[in-house]
Amino acid sequence: MHMISLASRRVHNQLRTHLTRAVTLSQSSFFSHSSPTMRPLVAADLNPAIANVQYAVRGELAIKAEEHREKLASGTTDLPFTKVISSNIGNPQQKGLDQPPLTFSRQVAALMEYPPLAEVVRGKWPQDVLDRAKELQEEIGSIGAYSHSKGVPLIRKSVAQFIEERDGYPSSPEHIFLTAGASAGVSLILNVLITPNVTGVLIPIPQYPLYTATLAQFSGIPLPYHLSEPDGWSTSLEEIKSALLKAEKDGAHPRALVVINPGNPTGAILDRATMEAVVRLCEEHSLVLLADEVYQANLHRPDTHPFHSFKQVVRALNSPIPLFSFHSVSKGVTGECGRRGGYFECTNISDEVLALLYKMASVTLCPPLSGQIGVDCLVRPPKAGTPSYALWKQETDAIHAALRHRTQLSAARLNALPGVSCVDSPGALYLYPKIELPDRAVEEARRLGKSPDALYALELLDATGICVVPGSGFGQKDGEHHYRLTCLCPGVEEYVGALEDFHKKFVEKYGGL
Amino acid sequence: MHMISLASRRVHNQLRTHLTRAVTLSQSSFFSHSSPTMRPLVAADLNPAIANVQYAVRGELAIKAEEHREKLASGTTDLPFTKVISSNIGNPQQKGLDQPPLTFSRQVAALMEYPPLAEVVRGKWPQDVLDRAKELQEEIGSIGAYSHSKGVPLIRKSVAQFIEERDGYPSSPEHIFLTAGASAGVSLILNVLITPNVTGVLIPIPQYPLYTATLAQFSGIPLPYHLSEPDGWSTSLEEIKSALLKAEKDGAHPRALVVINPGNPTGAILDRATMEAVVRLCEEHSLVLLADEVYQANLHRPDTHPFHSFKQVVRALNSPIPLFSFHSVSKGVTGECGRRGGYFECTNISDEVLALLYKMASVTLCPPLSGQIGVDCLVRPPKAGTPSYALWKQETDAIHAALRHRTQLSAARLNALPGVSCVDSPGALYLYPKIELPDRAVEEARRLGKSPDALYALELLDATGICVVPGSGFGQKDGEHHYRLTCLCPGVEEYVGALEDFHKKFVEKYGGL
Repeated sequence: MHMISLASRRVHNQLRTHLTRAVTLSQSSFFSHSSPTMRPLVAADLNPAIANVQYAVRGELAIKAEEHREKLASGTTDLPFTKVISSNIGNPQQKGLDQPPLTFSRQVAALMEYPPLAEVVRGKWPQDVLDRAKELQEEIGSIGAYSHSKGVPLIRKSVAQFIEERDGYPSSPEHIFLTAGASAGVSLILNVLITPNVTGVLIPIPQYPLYTATLAQFSGIPLPYHLSEPDGWSTSLEEIKSALLKAEKDGAHPRALVVINPGNPTGAILDRATMEAVVRLCEEHSLVLLADEVYQANLHRPDTHPFHSFKQVVRALNSPIPLFSFHSVSKGVTGECGRRGGYFECTNISDEVLALLYKMASVTLCPPLSGQIGVDCLVRPPKAGTPSYALWKQETDAIHAALRHRTQLSAARLNALPGVSCVDSPGALYLYPKIELPDRAVEEARRLGKSPDALYALELLDATGICVVPGSGFGQKDGEHHYRLTCLCPGVEEYVGALEDFHKKFVEKYGGL
Repeated sequence: MHMISLASRRVHNQLRTHLTRAVTLSQSSFFSHSSPTMRPLVAADLNPAIANVQYAVRGELAIKAEEHREKLASGTTDLPFTKVISSNIGNPQQKGLDQPPLTFSRQVAALMEYPPLAEVVRGKWPQDVLDRAKELQEEIGSIGAYSHSKGVPLIRKSVAQFIEERDGYPSSPEHIFLTAGASAGVSLILNVLITPNVTGVLIPIPQYPLYTATLAQFSGIPLPYHLSEPDGWSTSLEEIKSALLKAEKDGAHPRALVVINPGNPTGAILDRATMEAVVRLCEEHSLVLLADEVYQANLHRPDTHPFHSFKQVVRALNSPIPLFSFHSVSKGVTGECGRRGGYFECTNISDEVLALLYKMASVTLCPPLSGQIGVDCLVRPPKAGTPSYALWKQETDAIHAALRHRTQLSAARLNALPGVSCVDSPGALYLYPKIELPDRAVEEARRLGKSPDALYALELLDATGICVVPGSGFGQKDGEHHYRLTCLCPGVEEYVGALEDFHKKFVEKYGGL
């Protein structure tokens, strides 16, 4: 009965708000041609679910960073830094970070944009680039045409082959949907799964705020489970179970479980035993598993912390759980965020549900072709022995090495600071240090109506030009403070040096720890 | 009170359905490790709003067309045609239609993909192409980076300039949002405007099914108003008013009005007097106007049927109505559907609401950069006197001329058929002929559980390989039958000949009119 009362109350309250407004509106004159009574559009007129959407990665701090950047561009010199470093977003190719795109992918993409170019670059560009572009053109025709709504069939076939080679289990192009980045896929799946104000979705805390934002957008009920920081942000089955019990008490109906592996913002990687236990738990509780695996290629210590896909684990266990697995061209060594390319694979999903997903995908017509081409190059990189291979290997090795170096150096240096502890992430692009803050800083934040880590991050931005995201944007235990920083910045020594200097001054300013 | 009872009943019924399900689920064992009771994911588990989404443009017929295409590709020869012509989608660059992309835009795009290419093509490609790419690169950096969530500032500035030059009124880049095609913009605005099961949106009938699909997705209430076919599918204020009266009776709360101008599927263009009356009506009824203007450059008789933007009319009338205007790179003479590029402009929208829209845009990170580059080339085409101009002019003139010729020839020939009448569209890419069908065909359709025009369209596809969309997908008056066909097919004589032959045989097969 708890379940009924909670959902019923929510819907009732929501309804009352709307109807009050509707009745007020209906009092305005109907068909009065003499005196227009135009009301302006205000936020209170809008879908009330939208007000609850929060997306800290591009929130107050990002807007302030933009303002600083504009000031610098206009020649202002009263800021104590000369450039803004956007460490709030995993955006490797942004200005100032400038992770170089992979030559192979971009040459293929340029040929797709302008096929007559082939005659200009023949003999100058590697033959496998020309061959790939020709193969894709023959399949696709113009990249200015809508493709199949699930994505170009040949590219979905390549994705399925990539998955088969990765996992050792069959994969079907019919179960692959190409998407405008992983976010678009997550949004589609949550929209389809969530019955508003009824469906609960288990999400890790800390989490990538796409999940809370999308749950708010579609009026799903977030069911948080805490990751264990002392164990390197590991996923605890007990925490998930207690979140399920709490959901039962609160009358929310848990229908899906989100796992981000490797983790965002934590960089943690699930071990196989935990993954198997998660799958069994989904079986027991009829949960749909959403596996966000966009960082699967960002592994800093693959020998001790390898990546296993949930698809592989589900098949190895012969489990019937419904699974959606997400991947992207935005992360890994590709880093092609601006293309908006990605895919999801459906495992143990009935034809009936696949047809519904296809219908919904068709309303948005098709994912951007430039993203689809990016997915092709992600899943079919140059192989050893092909003309493009040596350069591709050199480029990707350098990106892996730089990311590993920056992560490990930053973690070590942050851990040496007073009041800072930081899990040395084995994967993804991030560190998520915990910071102890002076009581006076906490009081000052309260006075300003901000979370303490938001105060810390704002002062960091104003002092150094480094934009991070406070832990309150990802979720943390009460009384704890964190921030997420990306490990994408070149000149890591200088960058970490600035973080160190700021931290010491901040602690001192507010009276010490 | 009508308003309360309808919305309340809807929400109540929806809630009852969900709770019945939720209670059933809660009976499954909780934490039973011994016997997993995994239920498969079935459509009945999903968001009930999704079941109501219909999108005929890519529905049953499109799927069958795909099957025919696959058969032909695999060498099947038992079909009475040699190619499938997808006249169901306004997709100019698709295989078989092959409208060539504009050289200027594609050369710029290729340089953006692979900047070192500039050294290879310098002196070979026009200098204005190299200059444009350089300007964009300096602003954007890598197109593999996320941009500002509203789109690259320089490109939004170019859009604002384009609008100012078009309308003669100011436009601000701050009021422009770049989007993944116009569809993504429409979806965002409807999601934000619609309070589920409460908000009514006036939509033209016939309409582009994006609107009914998106309303179903977000549980908005469609309030149809009929366009007047005898007057060339004109927009009738009386029809809108009677839809408003009906909404009041039904207890739906009208909050927004959709106008598609030039029309889809009708190709009609609103005259200025009608537009002014529409704006006044929005003032009187506090309606937000959604102006879908993606076909603004597809004008076949601009002297007698010019395009005016609603932004221009709103400003000329000094009207306070909130207006969202949509445009796209997919239509016009650009035809770059696969890039997923477009924008919307906000007029008379408060900063508070703009901030909410920005927040929602930020959750999807950014529109694809390839689409944004496409928007730049759409709003800043080569000007007279620049090196790329002559070719650009030749290419765009040819596309305009071909579309005009195909539209007029097809309309004339269809009008000569018994039982067919067809408004000779002055704009957009479509014709929407009305067809009288033999009684026996109507009976046969009823027997098969199909709409009569769906039967007609299916038999047309099986006989000729031409895929059109039945009128039932766009909406029409009871007892009427239509279909929409695109006017993008080269070899229009042969194409219309096939339509004629089929029509005569169909009428004969079912016993005549």
